[in-house]
Amino acid sequence: MKIREHLTFEERWVLVEHCYESARNASAGGLFLIGNGYLGYRGTLADQRASDHVGLVLTDTYDNADGTWTELCTVPNPLYATIEIDRRPLDLATTDRRAYRRSLDLSRAVWTFQAETDAMAIEEQRFVPLERRQVLARRFAFRAKRDLELGLTVGIDGRVWSIHGQHLGEQRGTIDGDTAWIVARTFEHGYGIAVAARSQVAVGATALLEPGRATADAVDHRLQLRLPAGQTLVLDTFAAVGSSNDLAPTAARPGPRPESLDPLVTHVHDCLDAAESAGYEALLAEHTTAWSAVWERHDVVITGSELSTAALRFNTYHNVIATPRHTDHLPIGARGLSCQVYQGAAFWDQEIFNLPMFMYSDPAPARNVLVYRHKTLAGARRKARRLGYRGAYYAWVSADSGDEICPPYFFRDVLTGRPIRNHFNDWQMHISPDIAYAIACYVRITGDDAFLLQYGAEVLFEIARFLYSRSYLRPDLGRYELVRVLGPDEYHENVDNNFFTNYQARFAADYAVRVYAQLAEHHPDDLQRIAAAIELDAAEPDAWRDFAARLFVPGPDARTGLIEQFSGFFDHEDTTPEALRRRLIDPSEYWGWPNGVAVATQVSKQADVVQLFALHPDAFDREIVARNWEYYEPRTQHGSSLSPSVYAVVAARLGNVAQAERYFSRSLMIDLQDTNKAVSGGTFIGGIHTAACGASWQIAVLGFAGLREIEGGYTLLPHLPATWDGIALSVERFGCRVRVELNRDNRRLIATWRAAADNAKALRCGLGDAVGSVAPGATLTLERQTQDF
Amino acid sequence: MKIREHLTFEERWVLVEHCYESARNASAGGLFLIGNGYLGYRGTLADQRASDHVGLVLTDTYDNADGTWTELCTVPNPLYATIEIDRRPLDLATTDRRAYRRSLDLSRAVWTFQAETDAMAIEEQRFVPLERRQVLARRFAFRAKRDLELGLTVGIDGRVWSIHGQHLGEQRGTIDGDTAWIVARTFEHGYGIAVAARSQVAVGATALLEPGRATADAVDHRLQLRLPAGQTLVLDTFAAVGSSNDLAPTAARPGPRPESLDPLVTHVHDCLDAAESAGYEALLAEHTTAWSAVWERHDVVITGSELSTAALRFNTYHNVIATPRHTDHLPIGARGLSCQVYQGAAFWDQEIFNLPMFMYSDPAPARNVLVYRHKTLAGARRKARRLGYRGAYYAWVSADSGDEICPPYFFRDVLTGRPIRNHFNDWQMHISPDIAYAIACYVRITGDDAFLLQYGAEVLFEIARFLYSRSYLRPDLGRYELVRVLGPDEYHENVDNNFFTNYQARFAADYAVRVYAQLAEHHPDDLQRIAAAIELDAAEPDAWRDFAARLFVPGPDARTGLIEQFSGFFDHEDTTPEALRRRLIDPSEYWGWPNGVAVATQVSKQADVVQLFALHPDAFDREIVARNWEYYEPRTQHGSSLSPSVYAVVAARLGNVAQAERYFSRSLMIDLQDTNKAVSGGTFIGGIHTAACGASWQIAVLGFAGLREIEGGYTLLPHLPATWDGIALSVERFGCRVRVELNRDNRRLIATWRAAADNAKALRCGLGDAVGSVAPGATLTLERQTQDF
Repeated sequence: MKIREHLTFEERWVLVEHCYESARNASAGGLFLIGNGYLGYRGTLADQRASDHVGLVLTDTYDNADGTWTELCTVPNPLYATIEIDRRPLDLATTDRRAYRRSLDLSRAVWTFQAETDAMAIEEQRFVPLERRQVLARRFAFRAKRDLELGLTVGIDGRVWSIHGQHLGEQRGTIDGDTAWIVARTFEHGYGIAVAARSQVAVGATALLEPGRATADAVDHRLQLRLPAGQTLVLDTFAAVGSSNDLAPTAARPGPRPESLDPLVTHVHDCLDAAESAGYEALLAEHTTAWSAVWERHDVVITGSELSTAALRFNTYHNVIATPRHTDHLPIGARGLSCQVYQGAAFWDQEIFNLPMFMYSDPAPARNVLVYRHKTLAGARRKARRLGYRGAYYAWVSADSGDEICPPYFFRDVLTGRPIRNHFNDWQMHISPDIAYAIACYVRITGDDAFLLQYGAEVLFEIARFLYSRSYLRPDLGRYELVRVLGPDEYHENVDNNFFTNYQARFAADYAVRVYAQLAEHHPDDLQRIAAAIELDAAEPDAWRDFAARLFVPGPDARTGLIEQFSGFFDHEDTTPEALRRRLIDPSEYWGWPNGVAVATQVSKQADVVQLFALHPDAFDREIVARNWEYYEPRTQHGSSLSPSVYAVVAARLGNVAQAERYFSRSLMIDLQDTNKAVSGGTFIGGIHTAACGASWQIAVLGFAGLREIEGGYTLLPHLPATWDGIALSVERFGCRVRVELNRDNRRLIATWRAAADNAKALRCGLGDAVGSVAPGATLTLERQTQDF
Repeated sequence: MKIREHLTFEERWVLVEHCYESARNASAGGLFLIGNGYLGYRGTLADQRASDHVGLVLTDTYDNADGTWTELCTVPNPLYATIEIDRRPLDLATTDRRAYRRSLDLSRAVWTFQAETDAMAIEEQRFVPLERRQVLARRFAFRAKRDLELGLTVGIDGRVWSIHGQHLGEQRGTIDGDTAWIVARTFEHGYGIAVAARSQVAVGATALLEPGRATADAVDHRLQLRLPAGQTLVLDTFAAVGSSNDLAPTAARPGPRPESLDPLVTHVHDCLDAAESAGYEALLAEHTTAWSAVWERHDVVITGSELSTAALRFNTYHNVIATPRHTDHLPIGARGLSCQVYQGAAFWDQEIFNLPMFMYSDPAPARNVLVYRHKTLAGARRKARRLGYRGAYYAWVSADSGDEICPPYFFRDVLTGRPIRNHFNDWQMHISPDIAYAIACYVRITGDDAFLLQYGAEVLFEIARFLYSRSYLRPDLGRYELVRVLGPDEYHENVDNNFFTNYQARFAADYAVRVYAQLAEHHPDDLQRIAAAIELDAAEPDAWRDFAARLFVPGPDARTGLIEQFSGFFDHEDTTPEALRRRLIDPSEYWGWPNGVAVATQVSKQADVVQLFALHPDAFDREIVARNWEYYEPRTQHGSSLSPSVYAVVAARLGNVAQAERYFSRSLMIDLQDTNKAVSGGTFIGGIHTAACGASWQIAVLGFAGLREIEGGYTLLPHLPATWDGIALSVERFGCRVRVELNRDNRRLIATWRAAADNAKALRCGLGDAVGSVAPGATLTLERQTQDF
């Protein structure tokens, strides 16, 4: 299955690059990324270095080295290796083109590289154990095609690629017997960082590696031996990494500056020893099993479209490895752990794009990330206070502490060289109600009331409190308004009554009121505890109720059915993205605030009105949704990777299948087709668009399959593309798992629901309005003669 | 008294240019302007043409010819003349330098030009009768220095200079006996425009002028005669102009498109005949008398500073001729009638800068212009409705109808060529409360309650209503705010709670409530009439009272005494205008919104916090005023001609005399020293800064002399510059006139108040807190040993 020149899928599971392309190297590092939610190791070649965008990104290491950008650290590369044949260095990228193959087996998250020269065939395999999160494992196999002298240098490359300044200082490289170490401290917080690597010959020789260099930037071991023709040398490398934050209490971030780094070194040492003791094959078997479980939950199979199936797996894979599974105090980065772009921090992407896949099919990580929002309440409160509000104003860009880390000036006007002040960090307020929305979805899907009591309610109340304090009452109109906001469409800053923002705010306030009432009735002690903790006055929920009741939310025009994106939007120039592109003086100039080409027009960066429909599928009549989709679609530039998926989901639900398929493909291929340059003007802007990854799953499941919650379970309102024969997917509800296979036979649709045997109770499952009960271990088949939903 | 190279004052009354400078020609046209509040005739030379910025600007002719700019029309020039000596054309600008003299006698508003060649001496005298507003009169005297043949062409030059498109169409030139005519229609509204001119030899020959050309662009008469050595030929020209709006009811603007222009022609004809019948000398005598009366009211004499006296007269003169004396349905243009710049329309300049001089010393024109605000209520209401508000949101740029004529895009970013959207027309809301403030001042000074009942109250109620509807209530703070405004400092758009705006708004709402109560008590019938006319609900004044009571107005910081210009201002970068100038990429780039160098800094275009002190001299303690003056002064760029006067008035009141003198001089000299280029990048931006003209009078009278209203009259709290020996000025109160001479004798101050004999009652007059009564015709002398006030 060809994706683009030199890039294919094999067996719907394996991504393969057939030719090294230096121009695509920066993007390939992201595509072939391996990771586990704790670290991300870019899929570069073993002998590549900082300038090739090699990167080992470590979570929970947010640090500011340049006075502007707080970002995750990249740490020394413990899988660095160079190879000599007959004492002549080999460049892996320029080996025989015909034999070159870089691949990533998504089914078990294993990276493989194959190369050949006249003298030797090389295979390298790497993985990052899903459950042993601090470990990296790599196996080299060198097969001599003739007698040769093989020279290997393996160890840690300490010269790291870092986007905004060098975070690592006091860097020390040491050799401790067979183990190479680099230990350092981060610039701002003085966190300890430790990286250890140990290699050994597994097969083919008895030689021991000799200690090599041990400088701050390079610590390695060397092996020099003769390899007879036909013989294979197998070399295993085990590595472990860690930061002092791994050992610190998670309650407060930034974490403490440790006095001594010895405990960290001991900790990393233990991880390394344990991995080595297990051995490469055992680690790999354990890892493969863990990934089987992942796919059991998340895998979506599209019958009739192998490429879509494979591409969707690719997207799902990246959403999984971006997400912290091991802790509830960290976010999902907008580029996951694929690089430092977007600071390794969370945006609203997390709740709206990444999490639904987990909520529906593996709620534990979703819970983790929602608890993270509770743990960062203090930062959200600080932001609110700083800007003159109350409650929780969540950071537009949120790292470990929840404080706003989006700088006020984050790029320059290419026409003048002047910095541009964007107001993402103080006006884009929908982040707070979006979190409330995600909590509502999570609780509704999982029934996890414990979460609500322990974390969710407090977050909801603080969000409602914020919204109220951020609102204005128009005294003569008797209505609340949200003024000077920045909605999802980031080209239009400084707008009032953005439909999306106001709708979400009303939802959040209303939900807070409902949860308050629910707690008052059923959990008065919990309510009292929460109220005491946040000094909640009993009159506040009444104020929120009033706010929800009298907040102005733009509605559909009686004649046209159109909903105005914000007050005055329709007075703006009505034009198209194409027309605006022709107005550009420089193709790379910013289209938005304060004076970009889109500002005074109706051209939106991304879905905004339509985004709301994606989140609230039953809130508006089909006709209204259709009219607005038709209106806004040609006026949307899709300048954000978040946008195509939203148009796809809504189009699929409308039964506008051709359009939905077009946008589905666009969303699936954002990273695979590398349409967005990874390096622009010398700046790396690449990495994996994790929101689009999560959203692609939503298109398939919530869009085409039309999964919809009903009382006690799910039904399907599918609109399958003409080329599809069916779709199979797994979901959970209230902790009960169910897999559904939906197949099309001519115009007939057949849905087969299979409930897991260990489910605690029966689920109600349906196809359209035909709904039945599926007991634990049982199967329910439903048929329908039409595809109209 | 030298003003600058080639420009002097003579006898403290006569402005003289001693050398023709082509580079300054555009500015000289404004400096030497004659006018009468109905028309302005630029002080260019008789043989100059459109490219020399000749202009006859006619009031009440607002027209839009280019789709963007509504502006007054320039009309054909009826005083055009060319001269031939011995059949060789003469260029007046290049005559003998030593004899060249262009002058303007401010005492009687007469323009004079003298030039000489080897063959002939030429003198031209012009004036625009103050009371015969449609007439222009000109006398030429040609004295032969040797026998020569003189050729004269006099008539109308129909090729007008117009800034934004050609307003005149259907232009026809005709000769009717001895009279030249050009009649045309304006582009947008089809107003009729008629210009007539008639010349005749008064002395020195019996020759009659022969009809010459009669095209659309040129209509003239010719005279060709031999002039013997020593003989003088005197030629008089009478001209009259008019527009069809002169004959239309003033109630509605735009005025009607007349079917026939005959009535206009008849009207202009009558004006011309009447002027000619009176004769040149009689017209001049009548005109001189009228100007004596003007100066009796407005003249301020500074003993010890002749240049200041003369310069202040120059400024006063221009404020007088900019102001409509003949009608109450027209505004004062920001450039008066000196050119079309700023559209011939009113800004807040009118109320805050132009009018006080009239309020204090000749209230009738002030009343006219305030009635104009009543007559344009409909336009202000339309603007409010269009933007979603109620009541009267006065236009930032207001012409005849009161509709907003400030275009949304009025200049381009010089760095990108892109139009810049400035929000002067929708966010600069202080214009409405500024009008309320002016009404309060006018009524307080004049006691003109009839004005309040007939016009003022309705305006005040509509302004209060607007302010209430434009406000937001912060529900959790329990306070009203004014959000997204543009205060006087135009570099900072989109700000909240601008101190000036909020203070003025509170004042306006409070004043409306007080006037409402006053009417309810003393004039219930009038109140009922007004309430019925504007459908005023009895609950509305309560809402205004609540608004005034709970509107957030930034106050002085308890520690520093500083008042924040707007919410968040002090968080902006603290730098200086000089530092910002060094950041400019292009010296002509705009410093303000959206991305100019000043936007994110504390550098202000003009006085803003300090502006409020100028309007409310007793509202804050001296120490607070001083601290804020000191803080804001070095951060003010004075990018507006309105700014220096404000710093001068407040500094003078503080007794900070040296600083006050520096800013006084700057304000006085804005036009005289021609520091602002009249033509920039090929665009004419010159003309007379009438606000600075009016403000200069305020500096002298309200600043240095320290005129302050007290119950029943005035006192003085003077702070005279060290070089001054005294100041004399005239003012009115409640219709009673009084002149005061303040003299300094060593450290002793002596004020002599002389009341007019025909005053209706005694006034209370003072020096500091020593106050006495001055009966009609009486004199009161007060002395004081100190200058501390």
